[in-house]
Amino acid sequence: MESANDGAARLSEFGLINRYFAKHVSRARLGIGDDAALIDLPSDALLAVTTDTLNEGVHFLHGADPAKLGHKALAVNLSDLAAMGAVPRYALLALSMPVADPAWLEAFSAGFFALANRHNVELIGGDTTRGALSVTITAMGEVDSRALRRDGARPGDDIWVSGTLGGAALGLACLQGSVEVEPADRSAMIALLETPTPRVELGIALRGIASAAIDISDGLTGDLVHILDRSGVAAALDWTRVPQPAALSRLGDESRARQMALAGGDDYELLFTAAPERASEILSLGRSIGVPLARIGEIRGREDTARMLEIRGLTPAESGILQSHDHFRPY
Amino acid sequence: MESANDGAARLSEFGLINRYFAKHVSRARLGIGDDAALIDLPSDALLAVTTDTLNEGVHFLHGADPAKLGHKALAVNLSDLAAMGAVPRYALLALSMPVADPAWLEAFSAGFFALANRHNVELIGGDTTRGALSVTITAMGEVDSRALRRDGARPGDDIWVSGTLGGAALGLACLQGSVEVEPADRSAMIALLETPTPRVELGIALRGIASAAIDISDGLTGDLVHILDRSGVAAALDWTRVPQPAALSRLGDESRARQMALAGGDDYELLFTAAPERASEILSLGRSIGVPLARIGEIRGREDTARMLEIRGLTPAESGILQSHDHFRPY
Repeated sequence: MESANDGAARLSEFGLINRYFAKHVSRARLGIGDDAALIDLPSDALLAVTTDTLNEGVHFLHGADPAKLGHKALAVNLSDLAAMGAVPRYALLALSMPVADPAWLEAFSAGFFALANRHNVELIGGDTTRGALSVTITAMGEVDSRALRRDGARPGDDIWVSGTLGGAALGLACLQGSVEVEPADRSAMIALLETPTPRVELGIALRGIASAAIDISDGLTGDLVHILDRSGVAAALDWTRVPQPAALSRLGDESRARQMALAGGDDYELLFTAAPERASEILSLGRSIGVPLARIGEIRGREDTARMLEIRGLTPAESGILQSHDHFRPY
Repeated sequence: MESANDGAARLSEFGLINRYFAKHVSRARLGIGDDAALIDLPSDALLAVTTDTLNEGVHFLHGADPAKLGHKALAVNLSDLAAMGAVPRYALLALSMPVADPAWLEAFSAGFFALANRHNVELIGGDTTRGALSVTITAMGEVDSRALRRDGARPGDDIWVSGTLGGAALGLACLQGSVEVEPADRSAMIALLETPTPRVELGIALRGIASAAIDISDGLTGDLVHILDRSGVAAALDWTRVPQPAALSRLGDESRARQMALAGGDDYELLFTAAPERASEILSLGRSIGVPLARIGEIRGREDTARMLEIRGLTPAESGILQSHDHFRPY
């Protein structure tokens, strides 16, 4: 194979990284420019590490806005750190592109760094290669032994969720032209899909309060099941308490709205559990950081229930249609 | 877009990761199965972190042996850790594939874990998605303040290299059918390309001895220039001392052999500098870990020379044809 684009071909990985991504490093011992970055940790800290990939045609459409893509690729990783209660610190960026387009890179890096700077995240390494458009980010954050794991939910705990659910799925349906909504709703829902807000402050505030947490990337029920699996418990959800964006209620298709809110995925809200006596404290911290929080059910012991997950307010047939978003399925 | 392969589509990222990649974790506080892995570090340790991507059609050919790909994707990252003098500890694997082929995954994971186990590397996270075949690994290792950086070379230092150079480039030429060599040479050179040996033990042994180090991924001269850039020095190489595999000498094309040995890339040998008084110690440690080491030149002050990099034994015209391997160019 030979390159059809010599200009781009000559722009090496070093050139790319240095031109768009090299920043002054203030916290890492050594950042971009060596074989590896070097970081150190406070002695009582744990490092939380996560990696997520976004591929064109699978996680975003061909021609997606590069600034929004730069935001979202980092946001989905910061959301994983938030779900651990970690303070974001460092990121590495592996970027594959068919050609090195300076305007695209400029916009992508602007979107990436706008979010990175908001959370004091330093880009400490990366690799830029030719290939199908694909973004893999590895994010690292600091946490301590109070990290929010998936395996700490206990019978009797409340189940909580931040924000609203189903908006990103409605935004995707708008982009795909499979629904008709008001123009203002359309742009609001597409924004939820394309530029999700990782709940970083909330995750950090929940250390020592939440008994388990996960971020909702695959859909409420699917992600709740991950907590139930890891914690060895069951749960009952109240469908009527699941917070939805008003645009979803205005859709006028109850079955579809239910599917989007319960199984839509890509919302990047936090789903967490906590003992009932922490409820007022949780409501108060939600108000203080400006994130709506809703109690949507409770954790049960497996011996106390026939079903791992009961959804109150739905018939078994209505619950049965739920299918979690699957990242291994084309967009 | 809709999936043409429902069987693969239903195999979610969780299924994939758990089936092929989830292992018992002994060192990390928390491994695969949560939103992020949790690791801690000894109090005097630095964490070295690096990421590298291999894309089909760019870094490996369509139809490449998955076991060898699993090895190489990890090897190129361990090579970066070796070039820092770090002890490999953890890896995260972001794997994109057009379809989830169990036989392919089985072989890929076997190749990956054979090398990972040899170096006690634990897979602590990952993401498996649909997309063009692409492997991004993030590797982490432990080092201390004696980490081998690129910026420590000083005038008067010797320049050293491990193993031989140009073999991987000759292997690539064999695969591409652009050279004719003996069958035994052919398989040996292709093995150098496809299953490189990261010089992990050497890197660790060179802590406190080498003044600077880099792994040779892009080619000897190109990677040496990175050391010269970061250290603010110049260098003179002796072409006649650059170690080549015998197959390269047998090629009978001196100009091509020179190009491969000096600029071929993909050899993943270590290039390092050290004060001349460390020479016998270095030769002795090379013997004790079984890695051939050769002194191929010396570092100069920039004020003492007109050229950043002189190559003795070559005419300026012969040196001028050298062009470093560029990862942003199709295979």
